[in-house]
Amino acid sequence: MDLFKQVTALAKRRGFIFPGSEIYGGLANTYDYGPLGVELLRNLRNYWWEFFVSTRENIYGLETSVLMNPKVWEASGHTSSFTDALIECKQCHTRTRADHLIEDKLKTKVEGKSLAELNEIITTKKIACPSCGQFNWTEAKKFNLLFETHIGIVPENKSLAYLRGETAQGMFVDFKQILDTFAPKLPFGLAQSGKVFRNEITKGQQVFRTLEFDLAEFEYYIDAKTWEKEFEYWQSEIEKFAVSLGVNKKKLKWRAHDQKELAHYSKRTEDLEYEFPFGFKEWFACAYRTDFDLKNHMEKSGVDLRYTDPYTQEKFIPHVIEPTFGLSRSILVLLTEAYTEEKDRVVLKLTPRLAPFKVAVFPLLPNKPELVTAARQVFKLLSPKFTTAWDDGGNIGKRYRRQDEAGTPWCITVDFDSLKDKAVTVRDRDTMKQERIKIDQLVNYFQEKL
Amino acid sequence: MDLFKQVTALAKRRGFIFPGSEIYGGLANTYDYGPLGVELLRNLRNYWWEFFVSTRENIYGLETSVLMNPKVWEASGHTSSFTDALIECKQCHTRTRADHLIEDKLKTKVEGKSLAELNEIITTKKIACPSCGQFNWTEAKKFNLLFETHIGIVPENKSLAYLRGETAQGMFVDFKQILDTFAPKLPFGLAQSGKVFRNEITKGQQVFRTLEFDLAEFEYYIDAKTWEKEFEYWQSEIEKFAVSLGVNKKKLKWRAHDQKELAHYSKRTEDLEYEFPFGFKEWFACAYRTDFDLKNHMEKSGVDLRYTDPYTQEKFIPHVIEPTFGLSRSILVLLTEAYTEEKDRVVLKLTPRLAPFKVAVFPLLPNKPELVTAARQVFKLLSPKFTTAWDDGGNIGKRYRRQDEAGTPWCITVDFDSLKDKAVTVRDRDTMKQERIKIDQLVNYFQEKL
Repeated sequence: MDLFKQVTALAKRRGFIFPGSEIYGGLANTYDYGPLGVELLRNLRNYWWEFFVSTRENIYGLETSVLMNPKVWEASGHTSSFTDALIECKQCHTRTRADHLIEDKLKTKVEGKSLAELNEIITTKKIACPSCGQFNWTEAKKFNLLFETHIGIVPENKSLAYLRGETAQGMFVDFKQILDTFAPKLPFGLAQSGKVFRNEITKGQQVFRTLEFDLAEFEYYIDAKTWEKEFEYWQSEIEKFAVSLGVNKKKLKWRAHDQKELAHYSKRTEDLEYEFPFGFKEWFACAYRTDFDLKNHMEKSGVDLRYTDPYTQEKFIPHVIEPTFGLSRSILVLLTEAYTEEKDRVVLKLTPRLAPFKVAVFPLLPNKPELVTAARQVFKLLSPKFTTAWDDGGNIGKRYRRQDEAGTPWCITVDFDSLKDKAVTVRDRDTMKQERIKIDQLVNYFQEKL
Repeated sequence: MDLFKQVTALAKRRGFIFPGSEIYGGLANTYDYGPLGVELLRNLRNYWWEFFVSTRENIYGLETSVLMNPKVWEASGHTSSFTDALIECKQCHTRTRADHLIEDKLKTKVEGKSLAELNEIITTKKIACPSCGQFNWTEAKKFNLLFETHIGIVPENKSLAYLRGETAQGMFVDFKQILDTFAPKLPFGLAQSGKVFRNEITKGQQVFRTLEFDLAEFEYYIDAKTWEKEFEYWQSEIEKFAVSLGVNKKKLKWRAHDQKELAHYSKRTEDLEYEFPFGFKEWFACAYRTDFDLKNHMEKSGVDLRYTDPYTQEKFIPHVIEPTFGLSRSILVLLTEAYTEEKDRVVLKLTPRLAPFKVAVFPLLPNKPELVTAARQVFKLLSPKFTTAWDDGGNIGKRYRRQDEAGTPWCITVDFDSLKDKAVTVRDRDTMKQERIKIDQLVNYFQEKL
């Protein structure tokens, strides 16, 4: 079995990630985070916030709406340019992305190619339908990725709205609110993390690409003259963040978008790619969006979005560097990176900071009330300080294996001796070594480890 | 100016809550959380998770998709019963909720009344249109609150989907996944917190009711025989949680839904109401949903959702108690409750645990690089441990007032003496007393306070 299958099987088996709506046969490209997945995602979100927002005096957090005035998406260019090229087999009606079709067949990247170019490659190379084997395609056509909905509960008067396809627009639309309330000085950033929605066709690579996902982004407003220096600074911070998640630097690679591939708003974009089991693919990115967005919003809204230099009183539209982080996709990165097969076990070597549970507490025998009571006290002691799992199912060996697969760095067993010596056995996930620790020393013990 | 206006004005002025898409004239009933609002919301979400999930060995966290298979919402009854009664003025075409129209005019609650009853009250009492003053209404009609969208980017083949109107269904649909992966024993809970969407008409009471909002819920699966005891236990936990947020018990009131008002799935529901500036209204709730949801999902999906008692091997569908927490709405509660006018200032007396920033760091004079450098070091020392604001705008008095309105419990000023004595002035929000504290003692000092 290949690594991707092993990782996704473990994710399902242990309660990290389940296919969405599974009892109803699923809903393609949606996934639910189980008890372990949600803790991993929470830890990642909180750590991202700490790394990029809380610990920087000039980055301001935000949380803007998923539903925005549709004019936002017109001004940003998304209603016209946020598209994929789709193609349909006239024989079996399979629909697929033209770029994916070519990529899979020719093992080459075609990002940024025009519709005409994609059509030509498919024709010249006679790429057949992967479903029915025929070569009988429609022309590739553009389809918009924004989900549509209608606001207003009276059907005759429904008004079109979009589910946001990125969080960035909120940081442009609220730019003036921040100038007015916090009077920040350049350079400064506006950051948010939250759900976005994209009506995409995917290759079914678990949470690598899904209809809804967690994105974390910030817009770092700068004086245009400094853009290259700032771009490089943020690139290095992005990489530092990636490595601090426990990812091997050798599996990371920066890839610059060439002129054709650049998004409509960008003058320079580099993707930080991670080597997924299915190849190097975008994980994080850094884009220089120039003043494209603020300029357009100023024009379309008629509201003055210029920044006033506090020293010279000069008014101008700042430029922007945008670091982007796919957090849902990161879960697949983290699981892949942590997945380790050893002689007798599978273990997820997640960095303790991100591990869903730091500690698991076991009563040695779950049918002995005195052990359960003592173990519960240990759980109560630890759970307000560290995410703590409770595990009383099966023999201790089985529980160790389960916690190894959950990535839990330490397991605590409360046994009959514990009732006398007020100590417990602490077992380390990676070394499998066991230590006897006094219960009243446990909080200190783990605080030092973390 | 009344309290509601004062609170919402402060929320906007200080960067807690902005109207959504404001530069485009807004989008009715959407709001964005500014730098202070997002920290308050994050603290509240994390505290809720700690209170109800992390510290309880038998509550499992989840995070399910916003987009689910539409069959979920058919089985749950939402496509047919999740409705409001709307009415339209034939004269000026104002559309409003029939219950709100009556409630506002007659100052009485009409929850649970049928369409016929609502129509009759409006006719009998001749309630005129609040916009044009005429009495010329259409009949009240039911409108569904689920937002619709379409998945699939090929227009001819679009398939209907709904944005979730509650998080609860995820905890029913994934029930079997949890049984299979964690084998929990009754009673146990599945919990999640996240965005939900409701296509509602509102009275414009800021984040009290919005198109999208943060909901936190859990489904606590029980043996049906224990439902009354469990209901009361969770009611008391809900109230304990409310009080621990710093809310005065006198402003809380439980209100039981009568037979007519009960939702289609519930046998008993009680709302914990808070006394908003516009009256007592639902804040949190506790509902006994019986086995309605699991039973329906089992029937409609054909998947066995029964629980097997580990001792007797008996198979049955558990019943469920559901505590529900409107987290977005809570922000309005917290701001209202904390809002305090004193002789010379307005101060937000938020409980320190929830305050957006625990500490603000000021360089006494922002144009003295040596003070800025020293203050920055204090910021760097504190910000990884406590949310820390940086404030260098205006004189110290002005900065105190600003932080008072932000609810920041402590302000630190770095002055010229700090360069020599390695100490700073710490000022307390509530007492306004100042203390001189050594910089290397600051972390301890705040850790003890918190």
